[in-house]
Amino acid sequence: MSKYTGYHGNALEFLKSKQIVVGDSVKILAELTYTGIIMPRYEHSDDKHIVLKLRSGYNVGLEIKKITSIEKIKPADRIMRKIEEVKSIEGLPKILLLSTGGTIASKIDYRTGAVTPVLTANELNSSVPELAKIADIDAKVLFSEYSENIMPEHWLKIAENISKYFKSDYSGIIIAHGTDTMHYTSSFLSFALAGFPLPIALVGSQRSSDRASSDAALNLMGAVKFLVECNTNGIYIVMHQDENDEAIACHIGTRVRKNHTSKRGAFQTVGDNPAFIIYNNEIHRNMKGDFFITKNYKQKIKLNQKVALVKYHPGYDPNMLKTIIDAGYKAIIFEGTGLGHVGKNMYPVIKIANERGIFMGMTSQCIDGRVRMTVYESGRDLLSLGIVPLEDMIPEVALVKAMWASGNGENHDEIKEIMLNKIASEFST
Amino acid sequence: MSKYTGYHGNALEFLKSKQIVVGDSVKILAELTYTGIIMPRYEHSDDKHIVLKLRSGYNVGLEIKKITSIEKIKPADRIMRKIEEVKSIEGLPKILLLSTGGTIASKIDYRTGAVTPVLTANELNSSVPELAKIADIDAKVLFSEYSENIMPEHWLKIAENISKYFKSDYSGIIIAHGTDTMHYTSSFLSFALAGFPLPIALVGSQRSSDRASSDAALNLMGAVKFLVECNTNGIYIVMHQDENDEAIACHIGTRVRKNHTSKRGAFQTVGDNPAFIIYNNEIHRNMKGDFFITKNYKQKIKLNQKVALVKYHPGYDPNMLKTIIDAGYKAIIFEGTGLGHVGKNMYPVIKIANERGIFMGMTSQCIDGRVRMTVYESGRDLLSLGIVPLEDMIPEVALVKAMWASGNGENHDEIKEIMLNKIASEFST
Repeated sequence: MSKYTGYHGNALEFLKSKQIVVGDSVKILAELTYTGIIMPRYEHSDDKHIVLKLRSGYNVGLEIKKITSIEKIKPADRIMRKIEEVKSIEGLPKILLLSTGGTIASKIDYRTGAVTPVLTANELNSSVPELAKIADIDAKVLFSEYSENIMPEHWLKIAENISKYFKSDYSGIIIAHGTDTMHYTSSFLSFALAGFPLPIALVGSQRSSDRASSDAALNLMGAVKFLVECNTNGIYIVMHQDENDEAIACHIGTRVRKNHTSKRGAFQTVGDNPAFIIYNNEIHRNMKGDFFITKNYKQKIKLNQKVALVKYHPGYDPNMLKTIIDAGYKAIIFEGTGLGHVGKNMYPVIKIANERGIFMGMTSQCIDGRVRMTVYESGRDLLSLGIVPLEDMIPEVALVKAMWASGNGENHDEIKEIMLNKIASEFST
Repeated sequence: MSKYTGYHGNALEFLKSKQIVVGDSVKILAELTYTGIIMPRYEHSDDKHIVLKLRSGYNVGLEIKKITSIEKIKPADRIMRKIEEVKSIEGLPKILLLSTGGTIASKIDYRTGAVTPVLTANELNSSVPELAKIADIDAKVLFSEYSENIMPEHWLKIAENISKYFKSDYSGIIIAHGTDTMHYTSSFLSFALAGFPLPIALVGSQRSSDRASSDAALNLMGAVKFLVECNTNGIYIVMHQDENDEAIACHIGTRVRKNHTSKRGAFQTVGDNPAFIIYNNEIHRNMKGDFFITKNYKQKIKLNQKVALVKYHPGYDPNMLKTIIDAGYKAIIFEGTGLGHVGKNMYPVIKIANERGIFMGMTSQCIDGRVRMTVYESGRDLLSLGIVPLEDMIPEVALVKAMWASGNGENHDEIKEIMLNKIASEFST
């Protein structure tokens, strides 16, 4: 960490001219008065703002040209805190933690104001000391990305890393992951690692660990308990059930969505209860049957990104669909209306897609409930144009599955067969 | 209604050769055995199927070439049922019903198997006799479309028709509408008719009136009660609250979504209780304040369809955004992840959109909760690239509002001002 991490151009000049460095506590007069700690920035940042961590825990970006004055209250304390060595306790279950980034994998040092990735098991244990009492955790950093920057290439990398532990003495694997796109990643892992013998829990946090309301520690503790006691396999998202700290929900990785921007209980299993709930430190199973159809693990870590998600709405221009067809897409997932419809103005272009052998699957923007394309004439028309109803698969899951199916299937019929074949609880029944 | 309405080509030949007409009760042997009534089809239908209404009330399309035999059980009864003349009762409140199509505006005649629009007040009253006891209803058919075929042009037509009744002795106006895109239509009306003095209720049904579980009658009854007793104005969607018949919910037209494909209680107010609930025939108000900000009605029935809704996901190709820019779009609404993010691979193309003066607004695919783009560096980057956070506006509502704003604003800054200006309860606070 340099004194000016991430600052360049005008912003760097500004800080230097005022003799302020990252980690300094300052008072700033702009449109309002702000008190806080100067935060580091990252490589892609603009040079027009400086970033201040307020006492509330929230960060605020301040435009330099609107700053009337900046005053140093307390200089940055640049001595690194000593990491306590946590002794592992003999006989505890072993857990592997793979870190990919996101709020949960970061730790904010109040004295330097820096967000640092939690790199080692020791740092993790020192950050959540309760963990060392219940499991022996090995931690490994795969990469460090906010989840909006997680791409399909990252899914492949995570899956390949997990696959190495097919035969190991771990009780389960935790993936620390940003929450924004966690359900896309959990879906990919569910298909690519079908039958993987160890349970896998994706864990995130909605509030960073420097805030009093942080959910990071409890979600991690819940994940460990779940992996050790669930007595099954599968890919799950483990997060707060709601705003209180008594219930941790373990959602099926192909039936879950982030349904609130900021609440701790943001994740919900669509149309059902979570697969498991940990309530007052006791684990309760709601899931009937197994997560995977197959009992034999056979990895299929491949995908093709040429899959589009088309959300139909009044005024959607069929020419936009034509553009997708002409760009050589292999599959199109429609987020249709209601039971699985699109306007009849779309039919001519859908006909072209069908003639070109592009797989087209139908889901519903209602999110909950089953598409049913035989009830109305318009649904039957779409069926005859080659659109395949995808039951109650969640649109985002259908998108990920279609990328995976397009990577593993050669042509339309193979993709269709894979899409309709239940693999990892992606259909509710 | 002809004997072969909607049938042509092979399907017509098939029926003629078997001496079967629309409305006949038949027994068909195909992959399974089916018993039901031959249904009419509509103009765009293919010629490979015939459609049968089963006893369950559901329709099924049967491929001709898979039919082994078809046997007439009972010929169609082609005598039209006499419409009973319903006498209006003096002194009842007056309601205007404008019909646009959808399940609610159709009536199925079991003897002919035909779906016919409910055209006149008399037919409506004969179909839901209880209505005549509580209101004096004038009915007018604007058009007859399933809601997936309702286009922005239809929104304009509905708004123009409503605007004629600015000064009238109606207590309120009902719009009978298909449920699939009802919340898009209610949003447009909310902006285009801001301040309109009479309350307006969009009403649909999830189950057609020939099914025992139909919600059509109760939803209509609820809407009438609401319009007469709500004592306010605004645009609402009035539908079953849940599966039971005791509660009808009246949702704010800009805060509502269809969140289930088939349940009767499919519509939900996002993140709040419905504005009004009619429970056991009593009306309860939850809405605080007024629906519209303005008290003065001034119609602005204009729109520009050149608005795109971009749902970001891992693997979204930034080139698709470039296509939208190059197609001359005026505004782009992002359905970002979490608090309002997209991957940093999108930044270069977003920069181009910004330079071209295209309005870009951010909503969240979480649907519930507020976007907050100052918490993470990536959100701040997007702000500096010109993306405007749209608070907790629902993505579909933001899309419709942007179409309306682009029709009423000349340039980026005017569109932005309109978008951020609360007009019709589209922000929750």
